[in-house]
Amino acid sequence: MAEIVLGIDLGGTNIKAGAVDRDGRVLSRTRLPTDVSRGPEAVADRIAQAGRRCTESLPENPGQPVGVGIGSPGNIDLERGVVLFSPNFPGWTDIPLRQMIEDRLELPCAIDNDANVAALAEQWVGAGRGAGSLIIFTLGTGIGGGIVLDGKVWHGFGGVGGELGHMSIDPNGPRCGCGNMGCVEAHASATNMVRRVREAVAAGRATVLKEKGEELTARDIYEAAVAGDALAGENLTRTGEYLGIAVSNMLHILNPEVVVLSGGVIAAGEMLMRPLMEEVQKRTMAASLKGVKICFAQLGEDAGVIGAARCFWVHSARA
Amino acid sequence: MAEIVLGIDLGGTNIKAGAVDRDGRVLSRTRLPTDVSRGPEAVADRIAQAGRRCTESLPENPGQPVGVGIGSPGNIDLERGVVLFSPNFPGWTDIPLRQMIEDRLELPCAIDNDANVAALAEQWVGAGRGAGSLIIFTLGTGIGGGIVLDGKVWHGFGGVGGELGHMSIDPNGPRCGCGNMGCVEAHASATNMVRRVREAVAAGRATVLKEKGEELTARDIYEAAVAGDALAGENLTRTGEYLGIAVSNMLHILNPEVVVLSGGVIAAGEMLMRPLMEEVQKRTMAASLKGVKICFAQLGEDAGVIGAARCFWVHSARA
Repeated sequence: MAEIVLGIDLGGTNIKAGAVDRDGRVLSRTRLPTDVSRGPEAVADRIAQAGRRCTESLPENPGQPVGVGIGSPGNIDLERGVVLFSPNFPGWTDIPLRQMIEDRLELPCAIDNDANVAALAEQWVGAGRGAGSLIIFTLGTGIGGGIVLDGKVWHGFGGVGGELGHMSIDPNGPRCGCGNMGCVEAHASATNMVRRVREAVAAGRATVLKEKGEELTARDIYEAAVAGDALAGENLTRTGEYLGIAVSNMLHILNPEVVVLSGGVIAAGEMLMRPLMEEVQKRTMAASLKGVKICFAQLGEDAGVIGAARCFWVHSARA
Repeated sequence: MAEIVLGIDLGGTNIKAGAVDRDGRVLSRTRLPTDVSRGPEAVADRIAQAGRRCTESLPENPGQPVGVGIGSPGNIDLERGVVLFSPNFPGWTDIPLRQMIEDRLELPCAIDNDANVAALAEQWVGAGRGAGSLIIFTLGTGIGGGIVLDGKVWHGFGGVGGELGHMSIDPNGPRCGCGNMGCVEAHASATNMVRRVREAVAAGRATVLKEKGEELTARDIYEAAVAGDALAGENLTRTGEYLGIAVSNMLHILNPEVVVLSGGVIAAGEMLMRPLMEEVQKRTMAASLKGVKICFAQLGEDAGVIGAARCFWVHSARA
């Protein structure tokens, strides 16, 4: 009988849950709206509901789950299992989420930051399967990151390591939401891709994206780039170049075995990867790049659920 | 009877050797010129000679050394104990230094990069005594680095992690010796401090440093800064600011418990630390900085010897 753990991917819009086995296979999945506005207790109820549904819909009942792993946005106090602060969850300050889920599901629970959990998943059964060390850049509205060393997340002294998006790559670059200047996030996030296109449109550049107006998204940009729009293509090239600087820096600093890029924008494929790799080749010492794999994430939508389950196993030292 | 290990600090000019006990105390020391030009075999003889002298001059004979640790510049193959390449040691390619010393001293030997070994020393009995994680910037002609996580050096996939000086902090910054642009080293090394002063002198700036001409060194600059020379002071401020960006980046990436700065230039004291800390405060998210200690190295000339001995103990899993 397989040992099974429930993996919970807590997002601002949806809660995804999956029953995951020791080989990283998702045996059942479910998805419920998060409804953040209803508050932490209601969200915890919803998480428990999603977990129960996954358990009930397990095929051929391969066993009851032995634990729960949660990937949550924000700063997490790992020892106490508390969400200290989560930017997109208004009012979430010092929420004892681990205890709240343990009470509801009567199972031991572990919790970690969502980007850390995504890194764990890719290192376990994804793009960096079996690698001794892996870093991930999670590309979205912001840019997050996760670091896995010797099969474990590196959390750092205060538990907030892996903030790869807030590495400054230009002392006088654009102001970032964090207060710093020239952060990778301030150059290469979806938000900043959109900002750059808007500025170019305002300056009179021709582009199919002009008609999108206020509705413009990063997805529009990479779809237009793939379809041949010159401005969109340049925008994606620039994004790839900035990410290439950040990747090169990480190769020099940590010399990881695998570097993974995840998030919606990786759908742009080679239009993102080519300029990124050119920048990495140009900037990185041969020894720091030798044998390193730089690639897109492989687990897509499942990464959060798989990584959350893995987080439980690692945390309970049963990995 | 104390367990003793010989620590060897192999430098381009001198070989320093010390007999180190389990508390990190240096019980005897010696120093011999490296004479790199005489070739690897002669250098190995010299290392063995320095080691024997240390053993002979131990006070009250507290025991015979049980092993040897070596800190060497350059890229090291840790598994094989081989110096792959060392920029300031002409002709040193694939030198099996560990074996060469084991043969001469008839003791087990461990070897690591000199900056890694300095990081180990400061984490063991220096500025970061007992810290769970520590990074060091070694400031000199170039800028090296070392990362200690959970009491061990983080080497990375290819053994070349910790190249903190080759993190780019400005995409269009000055060209670095490594080929990259805008590296920390290209902004803040002794070489670049001197370059910036020369450029200012050529542009007609008044400074007491003008008379130094081709002989100008970084030491002249920080001594002039401390004595009140305006140009030298600005130069040191700029160096501190660049280092502050690099430190802030490392706080976001690894969130280490301690950040140590070592090298001759730390003699400038607050004139370097003040602008560095102002930049760190300005750029770093509160959670990433909270409780972190940022300070100068404490072990001075002994760091290499103490860290080399520690490297032996860690490597032989007897730490």
